[in-house]
Amino acid sequence: MIKLAIDAMGGDYAPDITVKGAMQAIKEFPDLELVLYGDRERIMPLLTDSTRITVQHAPRQIQMGEKDPITEIRNNRDTSMVTAFEAVKNREVSGVVTAGPTQGAIVAAHLIIRRIKGMKRVALCPNIPTLKEGGAIMLDVGANIEIRPEHIVQYAEFAHIYSQAVRGIENPTCALLNIGTEPGKGRELEKETYQLLSENKLLNFKGNIEPKELLTSDIDIIITDGFTGNIAMKTFEGAAKAFGLALKDEIQKTFAGKLGYLFMRKNLSNFKQRFSADEIGGAAIFGVDGVVIKAHGSSSAYAFKNAIRQARLAVLGDVVNKMKERIQDSPISE
Amino acid sequence: MIKLAIDAMGGDYAPDITVKGAMQAIKEFPDLELVLYGDRERIMPLLTDSTRITVQHAPRQIQMGEKDPITEIRNNRDTSMVTAFEAVKNREVSGVVTAGPTQGAIVAAHLIIRRIKGMKRVALCPNIPTLKEGGAIMLDVGANIEIRPEHIVQYAEFAHIYSQAVRGIENPTCALLNIGTEPGKGRELEKETYQLLSENKLLNFKGNIEPKELLTSDIDIIITDGFTGNIAMKTFEGAAKAFGLALKDEIQKTFAGKLGYLFMRKNLSNFKQRFSADEIGGAAIFGVDGVVIKAHGSSSAYAFKNAIRQARLAVLGDVVNKMKERIQDSPISE
Repeated sequence: MIKLAIDAMGGDYAPDITVKGAMQAIKEFPDLELVLYGDRERIMPLLTDSTRITVQHAPRQIQMGEKDPITEIRNNRDTSMVTAFEAVKNREVSGVVTAGPTQGAIVAAHLIIRRIKGMKRVALCPNIPTLKEGGAIMLDVGANIEIRPEHIVQYAEFAHIYSQAVRGIENPTCALLNIGTEPGKGRELEKETYQLLSENKLLNFKGNIEPKELLTSDIDIIITDGFTGNIAMKTFEGAAKAFGLALKDEIQKTFAGKLGYLFMRKNLSNFKQRFSADEIGGAAIFGVDGVVIKAHGSSSAYAFKNAIRQARLAVLGDVVNKMKERIQDSPISE
Repeated sequence: MIKLAIDAMGGDYAPDITVKGAMQAIKEFPDLELVLYGDRERIMPLLTDSTRITVQHAPRQIQMGEKDPITEIRNNRDTSMVTAFEAVKNREVSGVVTAGPTQGAIVAAHLIIRRIKGMKRVALCPNIPTLKEGGAIMLDVGANIEIRPEHIVQYAEFAHIYSQAVRGIENPTCALLNIGTEPGKGRELEKETYQLLSENKLLNFKGNIEPKELLTSDIDIIITDGFTGNIAMKTFEGAAKAFGLALKDEIQKTFAGKLGYLFMRKNLSNFKQRFSADEIGGAAIFGVDGVVIKAHGSSSAYAFKNAIRQARLAVLGDVVNKMKERIQDSPISE
């Protein structure tokens, strides 16, 4: 049995979608057992089938717009997020899934579950909906914004082990996000990281990747520091938003456009779906001693179920222990 | 009369589009005089109207894919780009327009025209096609990748003066590209730059801007270091490319989609046009002692004409001298 904790109150549509997603996951995976942390009174009426699901009451929740998640997590230990993360720390479960605030999840992972010994930084690692089937993963996108080349290499190793276990890719390719493809490109950080990645025996390193190839390349793992990764990811999100608005605007300008839309509606909806995070699940938080998956705040039940699926695969693939072994074999200095 | 140098051989479709663009600009602006630098034998047959246009023969040109523009520019002084830039240095013209390789133009600006005294760095400043009429400008997007907060502030001041002169915005707003909107966000670089920008009396500083708002905000000037700016710009370009491919792919999957496309063709073409660089012109290179506009390598004659228009406005607005005065009033230490 794989036992996971669920932050049932995290996300824009909780507990509705978290409870539904949990029940869907249970139906799909016979080896799964879930513990839902949250407001029992709100969860129970939604839990129409409690097969392999238990509920642990947590009276409070972290608000999605919380400005100071660190203080919030330090001071309030009775929230659904904190109690769910504590279940990982206490080895009651092997992993946790939350759709709560990203910074809150990173802080909780760090403060409650704590880093793997020898792992120097944690990283936030979302899926990128590239044109390739299954997409890519990119890290770090914001957990650590000032960082050293050795830390980036550890990120890459973690992502390598994770991609093998969760995404079923035997020898995943990885590339360094940079402003040019030649080896000498970038700041000192990229130059030194490039060198270390080239020498690394575990990784299938393919050199630099420019952001303009981010969505069209077939690279499996894109590695960068948290500042650069965050800029790239948010630029992508912003472009998607602006393109959507402009496309809608242009279509509505003429009668022919509106007519064409009637024919094309399904195609446009499939197009939108292609860049949606729903299919793939959530972002992984790498580097702590347990599996942590952060589902999108606006997750549907289906997306949340996929985030649970992702956590299950990471536990099944023994990702955390494999990374521990890797760190023992190739430790890095402080 | 405003006299500008034109690198007639730069760009993917030169000299065809550069000569056509030059003739269009002459027709539009009676106060304009142009000197075309390039292969006389190829230019002359295209130059059907030589009103206020002279041709200076330059036997060589820098190839668009040139890997080592610095050596190329140092060693070959008889290229169309170098001779056109030398005309600025020798005060024969007030500015230069090229559609040649970007790195070549930055290096040529730096080595031939040279920096304004007291200006610590040059910057590449393209237009960003935001949803707001006229778009925004962003700098630096790749001229300097390791930089200090004071340099970024000079960029902002230059962009302020330029936006007043060329874009006719009385009190342009500017914002710092960052991973969050609160003042304390970002690396040390962003924190210190934020502080300096807040204290600056010339600027209309509006705080941080996240990349997800890049295309939908109404900010006039977006400021960042060359590495981050390059990442954001290329991510945007890559997203546009991927969205275009995926949209086409989805439309072609069904008969209804293809039918809808027939009605919507004009709307989709207008949509594409909205994010095209053609309307606005080229990227400005700030910081050297003369006006330099770098048109897109794949410019049409119309886009190249607009880049000439932009150079004319920068000369008319006396942008370089105004920046010199600003530097004298508020010099920064090395």
